[in-house]
Amino acid sequence: MRQQGGVGISPGNVPVYYGGGRLDSVERKVKVAEVVLRAAILGLGVLAAALVGTDRQVRVIFSLQKEAKFTDMKALVFVVIANAMAAGYSVIQLLRCVVGMVRGSVLFSKGLAWAIFSCDQVMAYVTLAALAAAAQAAVLGEFGQPELQWMKICDLYGRFCNRVGEGLVSAFLVSLGMVTLSFISAFNLFRLYGNNKGIKSSGSW
Amino acid sequence: MRQQGGVGISPGNVPVYYGGGRLDSVERKVKVAEVVLRAAILGLGVLAAALVGTDRQVRVIFSLQKEAKFTDMKALVFVVIANAMAAGYSVIQLLRCVVGMVRGSVLFSKGLAWAIFSCDQVMAYVTLAALAAAAQAAVLGEFGQPELQWMKICDLYGRFCNRVGEGLVSAFLVSLGMVTLSFISAFNLFRLYGNNKGIKSSGSW
Repeated sequence: MRQQGGVGISPGNVPVYYGGGRLDSVERKVKVAEVVLRAAILGLGVLAAALVGTDRQVRVIFSLQKEAKFTDMKALVFVVIANAMAAGYSVIQLLRCVVGMVRGSVLFSKGLAWAIFSCDQVMAYVTLAALAAAAQAAVLGEFGQPELQWMKICDLYGRFCNRVGEGLVSAFLVSLGMVTLSFISAFNLFRLYGNNKGIKSSGSW
Repeated sequence: MRQQGGVGISPGNVPVYYGGGRLDSVERKVKVAEVVLRAAILGLGVLAAALVGTDRQVRVIFSLQKEAKFTDMKALVFVVIANAMAAGYSVIQLLRCVVGMVRGSVLFSKGLAWAIFSCDQVMAYVTLAALAAAAQAAVLGEFGQPELQWMKICDLYGRFCNRVGEGLVSAFLVSLGMVTLSFISAFNLFRLYGNNKGIKSSGSW
Protein backbone atom coordinates (compact mmCIF):
# COMPACT_ATOMS: atom_id res chain seq x y z
CA MET A 1 0.00 0.00 0.00
CA ARG A 2 2.65 2.48 0.98
CA GLN A 3 4.88 1.61 -1.95
CA GLN A 4 1.99 2.12 -4.35
CA GLY A 5 1.18 5.65 -3.34
CA GLY A 6 4.36 6.91 -1.69
CA VAL A 7 2.20 9.84 -0.66
CA GLY A 8 3.01 10.71 2.92
CA ILE A 9 -0.72 10.65 3.64
CA SER A 10 -1.76 8.83 6.80
CA PRO A 11 -1.32 5.11 6.25
CA GLY A 12 -4.68 4.68 7.97
CA ASN A 13 -6.28 4.23 4.59
CA VAL A 14 -5.31 0.59 4.39
CA PRO A 15 -8.27 -1.11 6.03
CA VAL A 16 -11.00 0.45 3.94
CA TYR A 17 -14.09 -1.66 3.50
CA TYR A 18 -17.53 -1.00 2.22
CA GLY A 19 -20.50 -2.82 0.89
CA GLY A 20 -19.20 -5.82 2.79
CA GLY A 21 -16.30 -6.40 0.39
CA ARG A 22 -12.63 -5.53 0.58
CA LEU A 23 -11.57 -2.71 -1.71
CA ASP A 24 -9.72 -4.16 -4.62
CA SER A 25 -6.67 -2.67 -6.25
CA VAL A 26 -8.48 -0.29 -8.63
CA GLU A 27 -10.58 1.19 -5.86
CA ARG A 28 -7.58 1.66 -3.60
CA LYS A 29 -5.72 3.46 -6.37
CA VAL A 30 -8.74 5.69 -7.02
CA LYS A 31 -8.96 6.50 -3.31
CA VAL A 32 -5.24 7.35 -3.07
CA ALA A 33 -5.43 9.42 -6.26
CA GLU A 34 -8.34 11.38 -4.81
CA VAL A 35 -6.50 12.23 -1.60
CA VAL A 36 -3.31 13.20 -3.46
CA LEU A 37 -5.24 15.38 -5.90
CA ARG A 38 -7.21 17.13 -3.17
CA ALA A 39 -4.02 17.86 -1.22
CA ALA A 40 -2.32 19.15 -4.38
CA ILE A 41 -5.31 21.38 -5.19
CA LEU A 42 -5.24 22.75 -1.65
CA GLY A 43 -1.59 23.74 -2.01
CA LEU A 44 -1.79 25.00 -5.57
CA GLY A 45 -5.05 26.86 -4.98
CA VAL A 46 -3.55 28.75 -2.04
CA LEU A 47 -0.44 29.45 -4.13
CA ALA A 48 -2.44 30.76 -7.11
CA ALA A 49 -4.66 32.96 -4.93
CA ALA A 50 -1.65 34.31 -3.03
CA LEU A 51 0.44 34.97 -6.14
CA VAL A 52 -2.31 36.84 -7.95
CA GLY A 53 -4.02 38.33 -4.88
CA THR A 54 -0.89 40.03 -3.51
CA ASP A 55 0.29 41.22 -6.91
CA ARG A 56 0.87 44.93 -7.36
CA GLN A 57 3.53 47.09 -8.90
CA VAL A 58 4.13 50.83 -8.54
CA ARG A 59 5.97 52.72 -11.24
CA VAL A 60 7.01 56.35 -11.08
CA ILE A 61 6.94 57.88 -14.54
CA PHE A 62 7.92 61.56 -14.83
CA SER A 63 7.11 62.09 -11.14
CA LEU A 64 3.68 60.54 -11.79
CA GLN A 65 3.04 57.52 -9.59
CA LYS A 66 1.18 54.74 -11.40
CA GLU A 67 0.09 51.48 -9.89
CA ALA A 68 -1.03 48.16 -11.31
CA LYS A 69 -3.15 46.02 -8.97
CA PHE A 70 -4.85 42.70 -9.57
CA THR A 71 -8.20 44.37 -8.88
CA ASP A 72 -7.75 46.39 -12.07
CA MET A 73 -8.72 43.23 -13.93
CA LYS A 74 -11.96 41.66 -12.78
CA ALA A 75 -10.87 38.35 -14.29
CA LEU A 76 -7.92 38.24 -11.90
CA VAL A 77 -10.26 38.84 -8.96
CA PHE A 78 -12.35 35.94 -10.26
CA VAL A 79 -9.21 33.75 -10.34
CA VAL A 80 -8.32 34.63 -6.75
CA ILE A 81 -11.86 33.87 -5.53
CA ALA A 82 -12.15 30.64 -7.54
CA ASN A 83 -8.80 29.29 -6.36
CA ALA A 84 -9.43 30.28 -2.75
CA MET A 85 -12.78 28.47 -3.01
CA ALA A 86 -11.08 25.41 -4.50
CA ALA A 87 -8.55 25.37 -1.65
CA GLY A 88 -11.22 25.75 1.04
CA TYR A 89 -13.35 23.09 -0.61
CA SER A 90 -10.34 20.74 -0.68
CA VAL A 91 -9.88 21.16 3.07
CA ILE A 92 -13.48 20.04 3.64
CA GLN A 93 -13.08 17.09 1.27
CA LEU A 94 -9.78 16.03 2.86
CA LEU A 95 -11.48 16.09 6.26
CA ARG A 96 -14.17 13.84 4.83
CA CYS A 97 -11.52 11.45 3.51
CA VAL A 98 -9.73 11.40 6.87
CA VAL A 99 -12.99 10.77 8.74
CA GLY A 100 -13.75 7.94 6.32
CA MET A 101 -10.33 6.41 6.95
CA VAL A 102 -10.49 6.74 10.71
CA ARG A 103 -13.92 5.15 10.80
CA GLY A 104 -12.53 2.44 8.55
CA SER A 105 -15.37 2.79 6.06
CA VAL A 106 -16.36 4.92 3.14
CA LEU A 107 -19.84 6.37 3.30
CA PHE A 108 -21.11 5.49 -0.09
CA SER A 109 -24.68 6.54 0.12
CA LYS A 110 -26.08 7.89 -3.11
CA GLY A 111 -26.84 11.21 -1.43
CA LEU A 112 -23.22 11.80 -0.43
CA ALA A 113 -21.94 10.62 -3.80
CA TRP A 114 -24.30 13.03 -5.55
CA ALA A 115 -23.21 15.91 -3.29
CA ILE A 116 -19.51 15.24 -3.91
CA PHE A 117 -20.05 14.81 -7.64
CA SER A 118 -22.06 18.02 -7.93
CA CYS A 119 -19.58 20.09 -5.92
CA ASP A 120 -16.59 18.68 -7.84
CA GLN A 121 -18.26 19.47 -11.15
CA VAL A 122 -19.11 23.01 -10.10
CA MET A 123 -15.57 23.62 -8.85
CA ALA A 124 -14.06 22.22 -12.05
CA TYR A 125 -16.18 24.47 -14.23
CA VAL A 126 -15.70 27.54 -12.02
CA THR A 127 -11.91 27.21 -11.84
CA LEU A 128 -11.73 26.57 -15.58
CA ALA A 129 -13.95 29.54 -16.43
CA ALA A 130 -11.88 31.82 -14.16
CA LEU A 131 -8.69 30.57 -15.78
CA ALA A 132 -10.01 31.12 -19.31
CA ALA A 133 -11.21 34.64 -18.53
CA ALA A 134 -7.90 35.51 -16.86
CA ALA A 135 -5.92 34.00 -19.73
CA GLN A 136 -7.81 36.23 -22.14
CA ALA A 137 -7.07 39.26 -19.94
CA ALA A 138 -3.41 38.21 -19.70
CA VAL A 139 -3.10 37.88 -23.47
CA LEU A 140 -4.54 41.37 -23.85
CA GLY A 141 -2.10 42.68 -21.24
CA GLU A 142 0.84 41.00 -22.93
CA PHE A 143 0.05 41.80 -26.56
CA GLY A 144 -2.58 44.53 -26.41
CA GLN A 145 -5.25 44.78 -29.10
CA PRO A 146 -4.02 47.43 -31.55
CA GLU A 147 -7.24 47.35 -33.60
CA LEU A 148 -9.11 48.61 -30.53
CA GLN A 149 -6.37 50.94 -29.30
CA TRP A 150 -5.83 48.77 -26.25
CA MET A 151 -2.14 49.03 -25.52
CA LYS A 152 -0.10 46.24 -23.97
CA ILE A 153 0.73 46.98 -20.36
CA CYS A 154 3.31 44.29 -19.63
CA ASP A 155 6.15 46.41 -21.01
CA LEU A 156 5.38 48.88 -18.26
CA TYR A 157 4.50 46.44 -15.48
CA GLY A 158 6.82 43.50 -16.22
CA ARG A 159 7.10 42.19 -12.68
CA PHE A 160 3.33 42.43 -12.21
CA CYS A 161 2.69 40.43 -15.37
CA ASN A 162 5.27 37.77 -14.53
CA ARG A 163 3.62 37.19 -11.17
CA VAL A 164 0.21 36.89 -12.82
CA GLY A 165 1.73 34.37 -15.23
CA GLU A 166 3.03 32.24 -12.37
CA GLY A 167 -0.34 32.46 -10.64
CA LEU A 168 -2.12 31.33 -13.80
CA VAL A 169 0.18 28.31 -14.18
CA SER A 170 -0.79 27.32 -10.65
CA ALA A 171 -4.48 28.00 -11.43
CA PHE A 172 -4.15 25.83 -14.55
CA LEU A 173 -2.89 22.92 -12.43
CA VAL A 174 -5.78 23.47 -10.01
CA SER A 175 -8.26 23.28 -12.92
CA LEU A 176 -6.60 20.15 -14.25
CA GLY A 177 -6.80 18.58 -10.79
CA MET A 178 -10.47 19.51 -10.40
CA VAL A 179 -11.30 18.08 -13.83
CA THR A 180 -9.60 14.81 -12.88
CA LEU A 181 -11.42 14.78 -9.54
CA SER A 182 -14.73 15.32 -11.26
CA PHE A 183 -13.97 12.17 -13.32
CA ILE A 184 -13.26 10.27 -10.12
CA SER A 185 -16.42 11.44 -8.37
CA ALA A 186 -18.47 10.67 -11.49
CA PHE A 187 -17.00 7.17 -11.39
CA ASN A 188 -17.81 6.86 -7.68
CA LEU A 189 -21.36 8.10 -8.20
CA PHE A 190 -22.56 6.46 -11.36
CA ARG A 191 -21.26 2.97 -10.71
CA LEU A 192 -23.82 2.97 -7.90
CA TYR A 193 -26.28 2.83 -10.80
CA GLY A 194 -24.56 -0.21 -12.30
CA ASN A 195 -26.71 -1.79 -14.99
CA ASN A 196 -25.84 -5.38 -14.25
CA LYS A 197 -28.86 -5.45 -11.98
CA GLY A 198 -30.81 -2.90 -14.02
CA ILE A 199 -31.41 0.59 -12.80
CA LYS A 200 -33.47 1.07 -9.71
CA SER A 201 -35.74 4.05 -10.25
CA SER A 202 -35.13 5.26 -6.72
CA GLY A 203 -36.10 8.56 -5.18
CA SER A 204 -32.84 10.22 -6.12
CA TRP A 205 -33.96 10.26 -9.73
CA MET B 1 -43.18 7.71 -25.57
CA ARG B 2 -43.99 10.66 -27.79
CA GLN B 3 -45.89 12.45 -25.07
CA GLN B 4 -42.90 12.14 -22.75
CA GLY B 5 -40.47 13.91 -24.98
CA GLY B 6 -42.70 15.84 -27.35
CA VAL B 7 -39.56 16.13 -29.41
CA GLY B 8 -40.33 15.60 -33.03
CA ILE B 9 -37.35 13.28 -33.22
CA SER B 10 -37.88 10.01 -35.07
CA PRO B 11 -40.22 7.83 -33.05
CA GLY B 12 -37.96 4.94 -33.99
CA ASN B 13 -36.36 5.17 -30.58
CA VAL B 14 -39.07 3.13 -28.93
CA PRO B 15 -37.81 -0.42 -29.30
CA VAL B 16 -34.41 0.08 -27.73
CA TYR B 17 -32.91 -2.94 -26.05
CA TYR B 18 -29.54 -3.78 -24.69
CA GLY B 19 -27.86 -6.18 -22.37
CA GLY B 20 -30.80 -8.47 -23.09
CA GLY B 21 -33.23 -6.36 -21.03
CA ARG B 22 -35.84 -3.81 -22.02
CA LEU B 23 -34.89 -0.21 -21.29
CA ASP B 24 -36.81 0.97 -18.30
CA SER B 25 -38.33 4.40 -17.90
CA VAL B 26 -35.24 6.17 -16.56
CA GLU B 27 -33.06 4.92 -19.37
CA ARG B 28 -35.60 5.89 -22.00
CA LYS B 29 -35.80 9.39 -20.58
CA VAL B 30 -32.00 9.66 -20.53
CA LYS B 31 -31.88 8.52 -24.17
CA VAL B 32 -34.54 11.03 -25.25
CA ALA B 33 -32.83 13.80 -23.28
CA GLU B 34 -29.54 13.01 -25.02
CA VAL B 35 -31.05 13.24 -28.50
CA VAL B 36 -32.92 16.46 -27.70
CA LEU B 37 -29.80 18.04 -26.19
CA ARG B 38 -27.60 17.06 -29.11
CA ALA B 39 -30.11 18.46 -31.60
CA ALA B 40 -30.38 21.68 -29.56
CA ILE B 41 -26.59 22.00 -29.42
CA LEU B 42 -26.38 21.51 -33.16
CA GLY B 43 -28.83 24.36 -33.77
CA LEU B 44 -27.50 26.71 -31.11
CA GLY B 45 -23.86 26.03 -32.01
CA VAL B 46 -24.49 26.93 -35.64
CA LEU B 47 -26.40 30.01 -34.51
CA ALA B 48 -23.63 31.17 -32.16
CA ALA B 49 -20.90 30.61 -34.74
CA ALA B 50 -22.92 32.39 -37.43
CA LEU B 51 -23.87 35.35 -35.23
CA VAL B 52 -20.32 35.98 -34.05
CA GLY B 53 -18.52 34.81 -37.19
CA THR B 54 -20.38 37.12 -39.58
CA ASP B 55 -20.26 40.09 -37.24
CA ARG B 56 -18.65 43.26 -38.52
CA GLN B 57 -19.49 46.94 -38.44
CA VAL B 58 -18.01 49.79 -40.46
CA ARG B 59 -18.13 53.34 -39.12
CA VAL B 60 -17.06 56.44 -40.99
CA ILE B 61 -15.72 59.01 -38.57
CA PHE B 62 -14.52 62.30 -40.06
CA SER B 63 -14.05 60.63 -43.45
CA LEU B 64 -11.95 57.96 -41.73
CA GLN B 65 -13.34 54.48 -42.30
CA LYS B 66 -13.03 52.27 -39.22
CA GLU B 67 -14.12 48.66 -38.99
CA ALA B 68 -14.80 46.27 -36.13
CA LYS B 69 -14.53 42.57 -37.00
CA PHE B 70 -14.84 39.52 -34.80
CA THR B 71 -11.25 38.62 -35.68
CA ASP B 72 -10.09 41.70 -33.76
CA MET B 73 -10.73 39.68 -30.60
CA LYS B 74 -9.06 36.31 -30.52
CA ALA B 75 -11.56 35.16 -27.89
CA LEU B 76 -14.40 35.64 -30.39
CA VAL B 77 -12.52 33.55 -32.95
CA PHE B 78 -12.20 30.89 -30.24
CA VAL B 79 -15.98 31.04 -29.64
CA VAL B 80 -16.72 30.61 -33.34
CA ILE B 81 -14.36 27.62 -33.61
CA ALA B 82 -15.59 26.01 -30.39
CA ASN B 83 -19.26 26.33 -31.32
CA ALA B 84 -18.70 25.14 -34.88
CA MET B 85 -16.86 22.14 -33.40
CA ALA B 86 -19.73 21.50 -30.98
CA ALA B 87 -22.23 21.61 -33.86
CA GLY B 88 -20.17 19.27 -36.03
CA TYR B 89 -19.63 16.92 -33.13
CA SER B 90 -23.39 16.87 -32.46
CA VAL B 91 -24.05 15.81 -36.05
CA ILE B 92 -21.74 12.82 -35.59
CA GLN B 93 -23.36 11.92 -32.26
CA LEU B 94 -26.88 12.27 -33.67
CA LEU B 95 -25.90 9.93 -36.50
CA ARG B 96 -24.67 7.46 -33.88
CA CYS B 97 -28.01 7.73 -32.04
CA VAL B 98 -29.97 7.22 -35.27
CA VAL B 99 -27.84 4.20 -36.21
CA GLY B 100 -28.44 2.78 -32.73
CA MET B 101 -32.19 3.26 -33.11
CA VAL B 102 -32.36 1.78 -36.58
CA ARG B 103 -30.36 -1.25 -35.50
CA GLY B 104 -32.69 -1.52 -32.52
CA SER B 105 -29.81 -1.69 -30.08
CA VAL B 106 -27.45 0.60 -28.28
CA LEU B 107 -23.79 -0.29 -28.56
CA PHE B 108 -22.80 -0.19 -24.95
CA SER B 109 -19.29 -1.45 -25.09
CA LYS B 110 -16.96 0.16 -22.58
CA GLY B 111 -14.76 1.40 -25.41
CA LEU B 112 -17.58 3.34 -27.06
CA ALA B 113 -18.84 4.65 -23.73
CA TRP B 114 -15.32 5.87 -22.89
CA ALA B 115 -14.97 7.55 -26.29
CA ILE B 116 -18.33 9.35 -25.97
CA PHE B 117 -17.62 10.34 -22.38
CA SER B 118 -14.16 11.71 -23.23
CA CYS B 119 -15.37 13.68 -26.26
CA ASP B 120 -18.35 15.10 -24.35
CA GLN B 121 -16.09 16.20 -21.51
CA VAL B 122 -13.61 17.83 -23.86
CA MET B 123 -16.38 19.66 -25.73
CA ALA B 124 -17.97 20.84 -22.47
CA TYR B 125 -14.68 22.25 -21.21
CA VAL B 126 -13.71 23.77 -24.57
CA THR B 127 -17.05 25.51 -25.12
CA LEU B 128 -17.05 26.77 -21.52
CA ALA B 129 -13.48 28.07 -21.75
CA ALA B 130 -14.26 29.84 -25.04
CA LEU B 131 -17.36 31.37 -23.50
CA ALA B 132 -15.50 32.59 -20.40
CA ALA B 133 -12.71 34.14 -22.45
CA ALA B 134 -15.20 35.83 -24.77
CA ALA B 135 -17.28 37.04 -21.83
CA GLN B 136 -14.17 38.67 -20.39
CA ALA B 137 -13.44 40.31 -23.76
CA ALA B 138 -17.08 41.43 -24.03
CA VAL B 139 -17.01 42.99 -20.57
CA LEU B 140 -13.87 44.89 -21.53
CA GLY B 141 -15.53 46.02 -24.75
CA GLU B 142 -18.66 47.15 -22.93
CA PHE B 143 -17.08 48.86 -19.93
CA GLY B 144 -13.43 49.33 -20.87
CA GLN B 145 -10.72 49.25 -18.22
CA PRO B 146 -9.97 52.87 -17.37
CA GLU B 147 -7.05 51.94 -15.07
CA LEU B 148 -5.27 50.51 -18.09
CA GLN B 149 -6.42 53.15 -20.58
CA TRP B 150 -8.46 50.54 -22.43
CA MET B 151 -11.47 52.43 -23.71
CA LYS B 152 -14.89 50.86 -24.17
CA ILE B 153 -15.68 50.28 -27.81
CA CYS B 154 -19.37 49.43 -27.63
CA ASP B 155 -20.39 53.10 -27.72
CA LEU B 156 -18.79 53.28 -31.14
CA TYR B 157 -19.77 49.84 -32.44
CA GLY B 158 -23.15 49.29 -30.80
CA ARG B 159 -24.57 46.99 -33.45
CA PHE B 160 -21.40 44.90 -33.45
CA CYS B 161 -21.53 44.48 -29.69
CA ASN B 162 -25.22 43.59 -29.65
CA ARG B 163 -24.62 40.83 -32.15
CA VAL B 164 -21.72 39.49 -30.08
CA GLY B 165 -24.00 39.52 -27.04
CA GLU B 166 -26.64 37.47 -28.86
CA GLY B 167 -23.97 35.05 -30.02
CA LEU B 168 -22.68 34.63 -26.49
CA VAL B 169 -26.16 33.87 -25.15
CA SER B 170 -26.38 31.11 -27.72
CA ALA B 171 -22.85 29.94 -26.83
CA PHE B 172 -23.87 29.89 -23.16
CA LEU B 173 -26.78 27.57 -23.96
CA VAL B 174 -24.42 25.35 -25.95
CA SER B 175 -22.07 25.13 -22.95
CA LEU B 176 -24.96 24.35 -20.63
CA GLY B 177 -26.12 21.62 -23.01
CA MET B 178 -22.63 20.13 -23.27
CA VAL B 179 -22.24 20.12 -19.47
CA THR B 180 -25.55 18.28 -19.14
CA LEU B 181 -24.52 15.83 -21.86
CA SER B 182 -21.24 15.15 -20.10
CA PHE B 183 -23.30 14.19 -17.01
CA ILE B 184 -25.35 11.84 -19.13
CA SER B 185 -22.34 10.22 -20.77
CA ALA B 186 -20.62 9.89 -17.38
CA PHE B 187 -23.77 8.12 -16.17
CA ASN B 188 -23.76 5.85 -19.22
CA LEU B 189 -20.07 5.05 -18.81
CA PHE B 190 -19.55 4.57 -15.12
CA ARG B 191 -22.59 2.49 -14.36
CA LEU B 192 -20.86 -0.11 -16.52
CA TYR B 193 -18.50 -0.30 -13.54
CA GLY B 194 -21.35 -0.91 -11.12
CA ASN B 195 -20.04 -2.08 -7.75
CA ASN B 196 -22.82 -4.47 -6.95
CA LYS B 197 -20.72 -7.21 -8.50
CA GLY B 198 -17.44 -5.61 -7.50
CA ILE B 199 -15.20 -3.93 -10.00
CA LYS B 200 -13.65 -6.04 -12.66
CA SER B 201 -10.06 -4.91 -13.12
CA SER B 202 -10.37 -5.27 -16.84
CA GLY B 203 -8.01 -4.10 -19.54
CA SER B 204 -9.66 -0.74 -19.89
CA TRP B 205 -8.20 0.31 -16.53
